[in-house]
Amino acid sequence: MILNYKYYIVLLDSYHLIFGRIATDNFLMLLILVTFKLNTKYMSRLNVALFFFGCITIIAQKPKVDQTRLENRILELAQFGLQENGETERVAFSDADVAAQHWVVQKLKDLGLQVHIDFAGNVIGKREGKSSTLKSISFGSHIDRVPNGGNYDGCLGSMASLEVLEVLNENKITTKHPLEIIIFSNEEGGVMGSRAIAGHLGKDALKVVNSTGYSMGEGIMRLGGDTTRIAEVARKKNEIAAFLELHIEQGGTLENENIQIGTVEGIVGLKWWDVEFTGFSNHAGTTPMNARQDALLAAAKFIVSVNEITNSFDGAQVGTVGKIKAEPGAPNVIPGKVVTSLEIRDLSSEVIEKVYQAIKTKGEEIAEASNVQIEFRALDTTADPAIMTSSIQDAIGASAEKLGLSTKKMPSGAGHDAQDMALIAPTGMIFVPSQGGISHSPKEFTSAEDMANGANVLLHTILALDKKLD
Amino acid sequence: MILNYKYYIVLLDSYHLIFGRIATDNFLMLLILVTFKLNTKYMSRLNVALFFFGCITIIAQKPKVDQTRLENRILELAQFGLQENGETERVAFSDADVAAQHWVVQKLKDLGLQVHIDFAGNVIGKREGKSSTLKSISFGSHIDRVPNGGNYDGCLGSMASLEVLEVLNENKITTKHPLEIIIFSNEEGGVMGSRAIAGHLGKDALKVVNSTGYSMGEGIMRLGGDTTRIAEVARKKNEIAAFLELHIEQGGTLENENIQIGTVEGIVGLKWWDVEFTGFSNHAGTTPMNARQDALLAAAKFIVSVNEITNSFDGAQVGTVGKIKAEPGAPNVIPGKVVTSLEIRDLSSEVIEKVYQAIKTKGEEIAEASNVQIEFRALDTTADPAIMTSSIQDAIGASAEKLGLSTKKMPSGAGHDAQDMALIAPTGMIFVPSQGGISHSPKEFTSAEDMANGANVLLHTILALDKKLD
Repeated sequence: MILNYKYYIVLLDSYHLIFGRIATDNFLMLLILVTFKLNTKYMSRLNVALFFFGCITIIAQKPKVDQTRLENRILELAQFGLQENGETERVAFSDADVAAQHWVVQKLKDLGLQVHIDFAGNVIGKREGKSSTLKSISFGSHIDRVPNGGNYDGCLGSMASLEVLEVLNENKITTKHPLEIIIFSNEEGGVMGSRAIAGHLGKDALKVVNSTGYSMGEGIMRLGGDTTRIAEVARKKNEIAAFLELHIEQGGTLENENIQIGTVEGIVGLKWWDVEFTGFSNHAGTTPMNARQDALLAAAKFIVSVNEITNSFDGAQVGTVGKIKAEPGAPNVIPGKVVTSLEIRDLSSEVIEKVYQAIKTKGEEIAEASNVQIEFRALDTTADPAIMTSSIQDAIGASAEKLGLSTKKMPSGAGHDAQDMALIAPTGMIFVPSQGGISHSPKEFTSAEDMANGANVLLHTILALDKKLD
Repeated sequence: MILNYKYYIVLLDSYHLIFGRIATDNFLMLLILVTFKLNTKYMSRLNVALFFFGCITIIAQKPKVDQTRLENRILELAQFGLQENGETERVAFSDADVAAQHWVVQKLKDLGLQVHIDFAGNVIGKREGKSSTLKSISFGSHIDRVPNGGNYDGCLGSMASLEVLEVLNENKITTKHPLEIIIFSNEEGGVMGSRAIAGHLGKDALKVVNSTGYSMGEGIMRLGGDTTRIAEVARKKNEIAAFLELHIEQGGTLENENIQIGTVEGIVGLKWWDVEFTGFSNHAGTTPMNARQDALLAAAKFIVSVNEITNSFDGAQVGTVGKIKAEPGAPNVIPGKVVTSLEIRDLSSEVIEKVYQAIKTKGEEIAEASNVQIEFRALDTTADPAIMTSSIQDAIGASAEKLGLSTKKMPSGAGHDAQDMALIAPTGMIFVPSQGGISHSPKEFTSAEDMANGANVLLHTILALDKKLD
């Protein structure tokens, strides 16, 4: 309920008046006429004045998302890949992912959109605007999930985009700009679909295999794409008027500060490496401690150093080793080979490089002292830091404010499809709180109210941009 | 060639003499008669004396193993589980292990033994002795291998035992004692067969699953045993007169010191634990460094501390982390759970306990400082240190010496079936050099000559014990 609108009253005669209001924003002008047959027998001037104030609380209605419907869509989507333990697994390219993709396509068709799957496996739905010359306003997210992940990451932005379209249909609102919903393919395994649209999904990336056992290339074929025609998916720079993505924060800032909406300023860049330690596999009982070339001991020292070095720099950079494999991997054999992951993230590419160089130098020192070899192999899953477009940030913030929602500007520590879309279009991201700051976990949770808040901000930012942009 | 035998010459008359020798050991008396028609026309006294010295180098013959045949048996056994890359995989309970077991059974039958598979999956072959009342002299080893292991560990002792039986057959030697060859089941996965014979293969051990995916219980069924009747496999203490095992050293001591035969004084004890670290799995991009509960970081600090603590004590104890698993195991997710192995070995149970307690204390400190939980779970694969029987050590050393082989007493850092057999029988172990000290690796190698040396010592120790023991 919005109370900050100007209103006016015009007395037509002693029996009728017009009660009206003009919204203070630039694009939404709502005139509600209320006529009353003033009957002084029943209504004194004071009563009339009180009646007007009461009206103010009713008239400030804007199109709004249906919170229950949105929540139900999230739950319905979570059925795809539901396991016996009540948790859902839907890694990109899995049967569950393909089934969920088909379900989304049908949902979008039911909403009257023109829908197709592009050559990179993205679901593209189009809704015509009043103007045939304007560029589209695009929005969306992804429905694939990390292994052992949650129901909200990607899914909220996707289902909220469907909800926005449904609300526009219900309110018979046709925007000037065409609208485009994009459900990106394989976000979690390297923002595959959005990289293709941004025109930089390289051939090496297609070889990367995810936990389903399919390579990206094979997965694109499973999703109905065509690896030989991926280049055709790429959009020209500024071919899209604006891109918006609603997402759960995946961190604890909004919850801790009791803020309802985050306006993302920028998305951190991210680099991945495989780090391989080669020692010598030998019998753990017969090889004295001082004669070992223990690849796992060297890797352990390296993991500790990644943490220490990342912490040694000022700033919010993060460095993580999340994956490790020791071979041969028996309790009674000194590991001869260990491969770990290394990930560094920051809003600045320079900081990422600086931290990496320090980690690499230390890793080489550790390897030499441990009598093992070390090799750093950069992986083709790199994302550069992306700054969100300032005018879109403003539009998001203003929409939230008008909806009476508290808001703050913040960085995104997680990578998103918006990161790649920012390379080719004015882009913004809307965050809603993650309970406990937990994400990439079955414990991931965002309340229905917070989800609806985010969806309403998405809806009204789209409408605001539709008014504002050429 | 042996030069330290006493010899004698008896002149029968001016035309004939007897050249003879008595071996200095108590059981082998070999009398070789050589008659010459002395013809002073051709042979002066000096020439006769020189001829005798020449003869000494020829006459010191004892039954000997066939080096080439032994080497070929090793190569033939390596065919079971041979991979395309030229390396062999034959983990206990695998198809290759079962096939190799059947092959050994047939080989033993061909050698005229009474063969059966006991309820724990051990291959037992019996050769009758002259006495029906004496206990058996037993010997053997195992044919199962660690994953990515070599052709000699266990295989040498097994194939040399076959060779010993073949040489006895060829030389028509019947010992006083019955002889028994034992090819133990699943040595590498917890000395399963020998523990059953020693009467302490517990029910919990049967649940342990190896890399084939079979539990010990299931594996015993595959090998033709019967888990409901394992107790019947247990031998009474001193039911066996003596047990001998020939094995590769698996370390570098013999090679480094240029010694041909090691007489094992004792086998180190070994304890295994699973160490579980429970932190909290979260998004690696959105969780600040200071808000993490990183189970892998804690595990890495723990692995470093295992090394430091093991080295901090005087002595030859070894501490190893050979296995690690981090969950969920993605580069962009902070690991919430890590399980590592922990193995400690020493000749003294007290030292193992002392090192473990220090590691446990440090592990708990690390966990607390890292805001994660730690749990140590002792596994039922423990082997107590075993001292080899002194009189058997002497017999091995003496046999080696008589064969002209250099020898030294040494501990075994690796566990062996002999460790459990020592609980119920006078037991000894013979070591031969491992090239480069490498074991549990496809690079494991022992020369055919070293293998034959070891097999000859096994043969002559059996014969010596047969003479000596009641």
